Amino acid sequence: LLFIPLLPVMKVAIVGCGALGSYYGARLCRAGHETHFLLRSDYEAVRAHGVRVGGAAGDFVAHPHCARRPEEIGVCDWVIIGLKATANAAFPELLPPLVGAPTAVLTLQNGLGNEEALAALFPAEQILGGLCYVSLNRLAPGRIAHLAHGRIALGEFRRPPQPRTERLAGAFRQADVPCDVVPDLALAHWEKLVWNIPFNGLGTASCAGLAALQAGAAAKPGRHQACLTTDRLLADAGWSELVEQLMTEVRSVAAALGHVIPEEFARLQVRRTREMAAYRPSTLVDFEAGLPLELDALFREPQRQARAAGVVTPLLDRLCAVLAALAPATAK
Amino acid sequence: LLFIPLLPVMKVAIVGCGALGSYYGARLCRAGHETHFLLRSDYEAVRAHGVRVGGAAGDFVAHPHCARRPEEIGVCDWVIIGLKATANAAFPELLPPLVGAPTAVLTLQNGLGNEEALAALFPAEQILGGLCYVSLNRLAPGRIAHLAHGRIALGEFRRPPQPRTERLAGAFRQADVPCDVVPDLALAHWEKLVWNIPFNGLGTASCAGLAALQAGAAAKPGRHQACLTTDRLLADAGWSELVEQLMTEVRSVAAALGHVIPEEFARLQVRRTREMAAYRPSTLVDFEAGLPLELDALFREPQRQARAAGVVTPLLDRLCAVLAALAPATAK
Repeated sequence: LLFIPLLPVMKVAIVGCGALGSYYGARLCRAGHETHFLLRSDYEAVRAHGVRVGGAAGDFVAHPHCARRPEEIGVCDWVIIGLKATANAAFPELLPPLVGAPTAVLTLQNGLGNEEALAALFPAEQILGGLCYVSLNRLAPGRIAHLAHGRIALGEFRRPPQPRTERLAGAFRQADVPCDVVPDLALAHWEKLVWNIPFNGLGTASCAGLAALQAGAAAKPGRHQACLTTDRLLADAGWSELVEQLMTEVRSVAAALGHVIPEEFARLQVRRTREMAAYRPSTLVDFEAGLPLELDALFREPQRQARAAGVVTPLLDRLCAVLAALAPATAK
Repeated sequence: LLFIPLLPVMKVAIVGCGALGSYYGARLCRAGHETHFLLRSDYEAVRAHGVRVGGAAGDFVAHPHCARRPEEIGVCDWVIIGLKATANAAFPELLPPLVGAPTAVLTLQNGLGNEEALAALFPAEQILGGLCYVSLNRLAPGRIAHLAHGRIALGEFRRPPQPRTERLAGAFRQADVPCDVVPDLALAHWEKLVWNIPFNGLGTASCAGLAALQAGAAAKPGRHQACLTTDRLLADAGWSELVEQLMTEVRSVAAALGHVIPEEFARLQVRRTREMAAYRPSTLVDFEAGLPLELDALFREPQRQARAAGVVTPLLDRLCAVLAALAPATAK
C-alpha cells in the first residue's frame, strides 16, 4: 500500500508564532508539510510539547521543527508571516535567510502596507497576501484556542492569481483551512477594512477615557469596563452610528482607489456582526494586553491613502487622533 | 380647635426648579410654607398641575406660587438656589429682588465656589450652603421621581452654626427632609468632593472616546455603552484604582486647606457605593442629556485650590483635561 500525497510536501517557515501563525502553521504541519517555527520566547515550550490547538473543530497537537534564528531553517518553499504589523521593521533580519528565488512569501498580517514592506526586500512576484477570517486566542506558549472560523482569502501582490496561488490555496484546504483565491488582493484588503476600521478602531477608542487617565502610570493589562466588544458597539445608538459612518468613509476611499464596495456589503457586515457573540477585535485585545497597537497598518496607512486620493475622512481622522493618544508607547 | 404650627410659616423662593429645587421646594410647600417657584420653561405645567413628586417615600402634589420674574415674588425670608452651577452668571439678574436684609440665602448647588458667587452680591452672614445627598430624576415639567435618600447637610458660610441655622434645619425636618447642621461647611464640601470628583468625574470621563469621535457632529442625547455607572467603575480593577487615587488626591488637598478627612472616610464611601444599585452621577446625566457640565464647581475650582495650596494632583489634572475635551460646548 502506498501513501499517495494529494499535494507535494513543502518546506514551510512560520515567522511570527503568535496565535495566528501558530494556528495555520500547526494545521500545515499536521497535514504533513515540513514546517519550521521561528520562535523566541515560546521556543522551549513548543519544542517540548508542540503546538496544542483546542477548539470547536477538534483538538490536535502538531510538532513543528523549532528554530531560534532563520539561518537554522534556511531557504523554504513557502514563508508565512504571522507577525504583528508593528514588528515589520524586523523583516530584513528575519526573512532573507528563508527566501530563495522560488520561495513564495505570504503575509497574513492585518491591514495595509505589509506586502509593500516585503516588496522592499523581495521581487513583487514572490509576494502574496492572505486575509484571515478567524477567531483565535493564545492561551499560553504553544497553546492556542481556536474559537471560530478560519477562512483565508488568498491573493497575489499586484497581479491576478497564478497557478501557484491555486497550489497554495489547495495546500491550505488540504490542511483543513478553508481558502479562497481572490482575483484582486487590494480590493479584498479594503473589504476587510470595512469591518476592521470600525470594530477594531471604535472598540479600542472606547477605552480612551481610561487610557488618558492612566497615562503616566503604567496601564495594567486586563479587560476593562467601558471597552466595547462588537455587540456593545452595535447595541448603542451613538456608537453604531459611528460604525456606519466609518464604513461609509472606508468605502468612499476604496472607491476613489478603484475598489468599488457596494453599500450592501457594509450592511451585511453589520448584520453578521450583530448575529455573532460578543467579540474582542485584535486591536482591543492588544490594548488590553498592554501590547503595541497596529495603528499604521489598520488606520494610518488607509488614512494616508485617503489623503493621497483627495478623499476627506473626518471621522477616520478623529479616530486616528484618539487611538494615537491612547498610550504614548503605542503611538509609534 | 386651633392649628398650632410647630414653626412659623416662611416666605420661600425656589430659584432653579430642576429636579433638586423642585423636590425640596415641593416638600417645603407641602409643609405649609408660602413657597414661590421662579420658573421659565416649566411655568405653564407647574401652574396648571403643580409639582408631582413620586417615589419610595410616597407620592404627593404641591401647588407652589409660580412666577416668571423675581420681581413678581419680592423679598423672601428664605431663598433656596437649585440652579446648575453653570448658571451662576444669572445670580445678579435673578436674586437681588428676592433678598432683603433678613433674607437667608441658601445654595444647594454642587461643588465649590457657589457661596463665594453669592458673597459677591450679599453680605456673607446671609449665606448658607447645603449639601444634598439625594437621588432625583426630572421626568417631565413639574414631575419629579424621588429615587432615594434626601438628606441635607446645612452649614453657614465661613462661620459656625447660628440660631437661624438650626431654625432652617428644623423647617426642613418638619417638611420630611432629614437635615443635619454641620459645624464646618467647607469641610463638608470637601467630604462630598471625595465622592463627587471620582464618581462624577470618572463616570463622565468614561464617555471620552465617544465624545471625541462625535465631535463636530452634534452629540445626541442618550445613554451610551462605555459610559460607566458607579457599580461598573467599582467592578473594574483599572477604574476602581483611579477612584481610590482621586480620593487620595482630594483628601490631600483638603488636608492642606485644614480639612482633615480620614482615610477611613474614603473607604466608607467606596464601601457604601459598592452596596448601592447602579447610579448615574449628575455629571454623567448632564453629559448624556447634552447639557453643560458643572466642570468649574466640581473639578476646576478644587484643582485651582489645590494649586494655590501647592498640592500636586496629577490625576485630577488629567481628569480635568479629559472632561474639558468632552464637548467644546461644555468647556466653558
